[in-house]
Amino acid sequence: MNKKKVLNDPVYGFITIPGHLIFDLIEHPYFQRLRRIKQLGIAEYVYPGALHTRFHHALGAMHLMGEAISTLKSKGHLISDQECEAVQIAILLHDIGHGPFSHVLEHTLLHHVSHERISLLLMNELNKEFDGALDLAIRMFSGQYERRFFYDLISSQLDIDRLDYLNRDCFFTGVTEGSIGSERIVKLLDVVDNQLVVEQKGVYSIENFLTARRLMYWQVYLHKTSICAETMLIQSIRRARELVHAGQSVYTTPALEIFITNEPTLEDFRTHPQYIQAFTQLDDYDIWACIKQWTVHPDRLLAHLSTMLLNRKLFKIRFFDVPPSDEVFEALQAQVLALPGVTEADLPYLVVRGETTNSAYLASRQPIRILTKDRGVVDVSEASDLPTIKALSQIVRKYYIAYAVKGI
Amino acid sequence: MNKKKVLNDPVYGFITIPGHLIFDLIEHPYFQRLRRIKQLGIAEYVYPGALHTRFHHALGAMHLMGEAISTLKSKGHLISDQECEAVQIAILLHDIGHGPFSHVLEHTLLHHVSHERISLLLMNELNKEFDGALDLAIRMFSGQYERRFFYDLISSQLDIDRLDYLNRDCFFTGVTEGSIGSERIVKLLDVVDNQLVVEQKGVYSIENFLTARRLMYWQVYLHKTSICAETMLIQSIRRARELVHAGQSVYTTPALEIFITNEPTLEDFRTHPQYIQAFTQLDDYDIWACIKQWTVHPDRLLAHLSTMLLNRKLFKIRFFDVPPSDEVFEALQAQVLALPGVTEADLPYLVVRGETTNSAYLASRQPIRILTKDRGVVDVSEASDLPTIKALSQIVRKYYIAYAVKGI
Amino acid sequence: MNKKKVLNDPVYGFITIPGHLIFDLIEHPYFQRLRRIKQLGIAEYVYPGALHTRFHHALGAMHLMGEAISTLKSKGHLISDQECEAVQIAILLHDIGHGPFSHVLEHTLLHHVSHERISLLLMNELNKEFDGALDLAIRMFSGQYERRFFYDLISSQLDIDRLDYLNRDCFFTGVTEGSIGSERIVKLLDVVDNQLVVEQKGVYSIENFLTARRLMYWQVYLHKTSICAETMLIQSIRRARELVHAGQSVYTTPALEIFITNEPTLEDFRTHPQYIQAFTQLDDYDIWACIKQWTVHPDRLLAHLSTMLLNRKLFKIRFFDVPPSDEVFEALQAQVLALPGVTEADLPYLVVRGETTNSAYLASRQPIRILTKDRGVVDVSEASDLPTIKALSQIVRKYYIAYAVKGI
Amino acid sequence: MNKKKVLNDPVYGFITIPGHLIFDLIEHPYFQRLRRIKQLGIAEYVYPGALHTRFHHALGAMHLMGEAISTLKSKGHLISDQECEAVQIAILLHDIGHGPFSHVLEHTLLHHVSHERISLLLMNELNKEFDGALDLAIRMFSGQYERRFFYDLISSQLDIDRLDYLNRDCFFTGVTEGSIGSERIVKLLDVVDNQLVVEQKGVYSIENFLTARRLMYWQVYLHKTSICAETMLIQSIRRARELVHAGQSVYTTPALEIFITNEPTLEDFRTHPQYIQAFTQLDDYDIWACIKQWTVHPDRLLAHLSTMLLNRKLFKIRFFDVPPSDEVFEALQAQVLALPGVTEADLPYLVVRGETTNSAYLASRQPIRILTKDRGVVDVSEASDLPTIKALSQIVRKYYIAYAVKGI
Repeated sequence: MNKKKVLNDPVYGFITIPGHLIFDLIEHPYFQRLRRIKQLGIAEYVYPGALHTRFHHALGAMHLMGEAISTLKSKGHLISDQECEAVQIAILLHDIGHGPFSHVLEHTLLHHVSHERISLLLMNELNKEFDGALDLAIRMFSGQYERRFFYDLISSQLDIDRLDYLNRDCFFTGVTEGSIGSERIVKLLDVVDNQLVVEQKGVYSIENFLTARRLMYWQVYLHKTSICAETMLIQSIRRARELVHAGQSVYTTPALEIFITNEPTLEDFRTHPQYIQAFTQLDDYDIWACIKQWTVHPDRLLAHLSTMLLNRKLFKIRFFDVPPSDEVFEALQAQVLALPGVTEADLPYLVVRGETTNSAYLASRQPIRILTKDRGVVDVSEASDLPTIKALSQIVRKYYIAYAVKGI
Repeated sequence: MNKKKVLNDPVYGFITIPGHLIFDLIEHPYFQRLRRIKQLGIAEYVYPGALHTRFHHALGAMHLMGEAISTLKSKGHLISDQECEAVQIAILLHDIGHGPFSHVLEHTLLHHVSHERISLLLMNELNKEFDGALDLAIRMFSGQYERRFFYDLISSQLDIDRLDYLNRDCFFTGVTEGSIGSERIVKLLDVVDNQLVVEQKGVYSIENFLTARRLMYWQVYLHKTSICAETMLIQSIRRARELVHAGQSVYTTPALEIFITNEPTLEDFRTHPQYIQAFTQLDDYDIWACIKQWTVHPDRLLAHLSTMLLNRKLFKIRFFDVPPSDEVFEALQAQVLALPGVTEADLPYLVVRGETTNSAYLASRQPIRILTKDRGVVDVSEASDLPTIKALSQIVRKYYIAYAVKGI
Repeated sequence: MNKKKVLNDPVYGFITIPGHLIFDLIEHPYFQRLRRIKQLGIAEYVYPGALHTRFHHALGAMHLMGEAISTLKSKGHLISDQECEAVQIAILLHDIGHGPFSHVLEHTLLHHVSHERISLLLMNELNKEFDGALDLAIRMFSGQYERRFFYDLISSQLDIDRLDYLNRDCFFTGVTEGSIGSERIVKLLDVVDNQLVVEQKGVYSIENFLTARRLMYWQVYLHKTSICAETMLIQSIRRARELVHAGQSVYTTPALEIFITNEPTLEDFRTHPQYIQAFTQLDDYDIWACIKQWTVHPDRLLAHLSTMLLNRKLFKIRFFDVPPSDEVFEALQAQVLALPGVTEADLPYLVVRGETTNSAYLASRQPIRILTKDRGVVDVSEASDLPTIKALSQIVRKYYIAYAVKGI
Repeated sequence: MNKKKVLNDPVYGFITIPGHLIFDLIEHPYFQRLRRIKQLGIAEYVYPGALHTRFHHALGAMHLMGEAISTLKSKGHLISDQECEAVQIAILLHDIGHGPFSHVLEHTLLHHVSHERISLLLMNELNKEFDGALDLAIRMFSGQYERRFFYDLISSQLDIDRLDYLNRDCFFTGVTEGSIGSERIVKLLDVVDNQLVVEQKGVYSIENFLTARRLMYWQVYLHKTSICAETMLIQSIRRARELVHAGQSVYTTPALEIFITNEPTLEDFRTHPQYIQAFTQLDDYDIWACIKQWTVHPDRLLAHLSTMLLNRKLFKIRFFDVPPSDEVFEALQAQVLALPGVTEADLPYLVVRGETTNSAYLASRQPIRILTKDRGVVDVSEASDLPTIKALSQIVRKYYIAYAVKGI
């Protein structure tokens, strides 16, 4: 069987699967599940084209990683075929632990476990199944491999993950001006002292990359309409869980059930195989199946939230530069309470506060390093000509209240 | 409230919603449902980017219709604001009767009713709700409006529907060479004797359009892997229905249930409101929710088909230029019967024959008309310089047998 | 004759010429001359695709201006057909005074006259020829029209000129990450108190626009190889002029001759028609024709410079953050003097210092104004959430010395 | 010095120069000359973006050849590094013998010598200069290398030349619907019995490629306005040559002079080095420099033709399906003669007949071969499912008369 398959990718043209092991990993149900998890959660409610999945992103990142390794090899760095395969596997599987709606439900479905932890768990599972073939990939992914730059490629402020998703998200949303020169940046990568660096002449591309990322945050990832839809989704699940805990019957798909009734810790995942079993069955379709079924649930609040979400009758939102005062919050509560059919008990589901935060660059955390012309290495925020990077490091925080505008 | 919204569309850049009525139609749950129906069914199993929906296509067609009307007006044809709105509504809603997976399940879920008939039913429902505001759109859609060219724009071999979906499908699959010059063709449209025509200088664009369409048929719409996945999906539903009819318990979502247990006719749709009620709740998510639940069904055949489909372990396929002989078919049956766990009774679900057919252009059916330089009108297949059009009119038919390669 | 022509533009798809007067202006030899003036001078030596012309840019800007006017009208601003035509004419002709190689030779061929001044002169000439039809366009162009926002559209830090050329330059160079959301920005334009403003939600697009502009400056407009080629071109012309002044015979094309032998002032242009006559004949081809002929000139320095430039054997360059010391400069002179065939007298042509400067945004000069949600108007650098704009306002200055590396 | 340069190409993103020898060939003045020869002659008069050069095309073809070789190697064909370099050199230099305006003036400047012959001459010159390093490339280029498929890649009906120029021409003209799946086709190439073949599943891509080529012929290469401009250019040179032969003084650039006064044969090129010397100096700029100078020539016909061409006041054209009768021709002559200032003697320059011809595919000439699923090899026009290919093989011929519409 031909395992050197070529896939169409509107972003890069073609993606070639580099070998048998990777082909088999892609064929594995754990990885195929990513076909059913949208990269941008519910952003499709704002950008109708944003339907792309973690599956496509993971393949794209694997492709771009291959380009990065080619560049490094062409600059004289010795990288073995085994290392090359391992780092491609690591990036291919870096998001395999994502649950339904990616980040949107990350802290709703699993309070205590980040998706990275589950990615690692699943990679270990796959490693058993593949007789240790993922050993090196796992060492790289968890930062334990001595050639540190592989980890920089997998996870840093200029990792292949971001280089793929920014362009991919631009492409499918249609926000073309957010596109970054991924392929140019990849060609400018180098390694010094086991650290990933960017050639000096790439500083403007880096600046553009960081600004584009900021743009995408406010224009797409933290778009007000997305936040409203996400809030409604989270409140629906919260309500369903509450009803279940109160002993009521609520439809859940087989895979979702365990996560509605329990709140497993990472330790639970490690010791009770049924969590992994269920989690690897779980995807966006479970959530949508429930939302759809809940629209006819006897609990009028659950039915209301689900129906409104399904039909895109969304909350409104107000943003604040500082945390809104209780007066403001209570005034909105009063306004919602005045809607037909709304009771005091519904308010926690219909008026919700939150905050969003974004800093384009944090020098303190795995900095982006520039290789100067005299072969020195500096943090990009120290490189000359870039007055903006320091400014980009400032954390921008916004507070919001999302609230219902229709009665129940 | 601002109803002049602008939407991002990676294909055209931006789509502007032209007015209040159209805005309200887009907001309607009937139309929002199209967000949950993929344009290309399960083609995403071959082209991972092909996740775009009927929702996006309908908006794109509405946009392109606006461009077409502008062109015709600039050429001196009087078109009233009311006509302009009506024809945009007609194209916006032309696919509103599509069910889950678009064409894939069209004849599986509803044996006796085409999606166009349901589109018309739903448009009539909406018309009631909007107090007759859709009267003219419905007359245009059903070919009853006296200015015939509006119908040509909505439904013909060069309609706005095709001009949008071909480019859109190219874009999201990444099969860039299938792209057609939609915007060029639209600018070359004209009207003579109430018929839609294309200016002479557009003949090469038309030829390219027809060839591109052919390319997309074989490369995408009738791709062998898609056919295999579709076959498995259809067999799963067939099996579920059979079990239900045999009195077994099979999970179905509320909206799907009625279509698994009954086979309504168009007359049933007209006389029993519960069919429309259920149909407008039905979308891809219902199907996927069932497939996922069926993977743990006690019927090992249903569980097998669903699990294989979900994990993309697909049938294989063989194509034939003539109908394959019974010998060939029986040989494949024998081969499948030899797989572990397969019984005689499973064969009708595991070895399936079918045929696909495609002709790029049928002169007999609403021909594409060319306006020659001396203001005559000829069928494009009669226009000089186009030796290929006649060739494109030939019907190409392929026969296939899809069959399982894994035991149960 | 059909004057509603449609032109192909790979950037926007199609550009429609909006009417007769504009059609006739485009047909005029003054405007057709722009076909022979490259937008980016000699940047093609770095970016082989950067061959686009002022002609194409002017048409693109006219197209985008039409979009901007449509947006403003849709937001309720009354703009007459006459105003619409005038502002499109003004942007169409805004660069008509550019000479060969656009900015590169701007201060070499004409020491004392900026291209904007000549644009105005030529617009006045055309106005005579068209019997005053350009009156309003000229008033707008020169900032004398009372509705000030038209001038903002023609010339400001967010004018249509920049919105076109940034995207166009990205497209043809292939530096895709420099692309800006021109069409999004145009849709966010509004007018308050006769001033052009951008809606609040556009601030990230503006930030992206300013950063992209910075990127294009360093990556394209001030690319080191471009500066080297430009320096050699300027030195060639300087040398030719010197030889002419010394009484030697040097080939020049008819149109160029007058500008090699004279250095006309704006006043000369106004009073001596032969300058305008010659200038409107002058384009890139004159310069290249001379460079080619000069390769066989008996003066070995002129021949050397021309031959090297023609064959792309370029100077090298060194950049400095502060003005380089005389020691540094003299050391480079000594190095060049040591090349075979180089004499002391050649040095001023073979070792050249200069500086480049760039600030992405200057709040002091026609600021970009943001319309806040409470309908206030603030300078973009005062808008919240944009820590970077102030940083972008800093002037970045670089000093350089370009010098020969091959003997004569 | 870093000879592994990366160039920006808006068509492919980036082009990497694969090694030292190729780098040095690109730097050679013979190759740099191609920067000054437009790929599409004067098509920019119709498509303002069509300014791309033979230089860029040659680099693109080299890049695509590298991709083709990678594909063949990945399919198990042994190709040495030396062969890989040679075939890339061969395609890089395949057009080096083109003169000004590419095909437009090919038979006007040199009656007896095709550009391919001059390419070979120049490759031999370069081979001497590079001490035989081009031996293998030359053998491949001239069809003498025993591994025949290399020649198929360089020159056949599916050569890399066409795969590059079709996409490139689409890109820069903006005729996006003419784009072909070059990268898909390249991935489907294979070699059987030393012949280049395409995998069966690529037949629709081939059909699309042939149709797109046809589209580009009529839409771009043989566009009526291009033909008019080309005719005027050719007549200008014809007139200049006639004047020179009549002993009058006519400005020509040094490089052009020898080809205006003489009509060298291939033998002359071989035996008189001054022809090669002059030819390698000759480019589009020589022609434009002359056209511009001729606008003020005392011969009123030459001045008229040049001025009209420069200012894009073009001839009109009439097309015919059969050769136009003498009556038709004479009627047009009479019409032109009636224009102010036109004399009998001017007519041969102002009324010109010609013909254009195009067949998308000629089975008789280096056919495109398909590798069927049972490993047979058939001509594409014999492959099933492709009713159109035979139709595309028909030669379409058009006759035209181009004629002046303005008096002198």
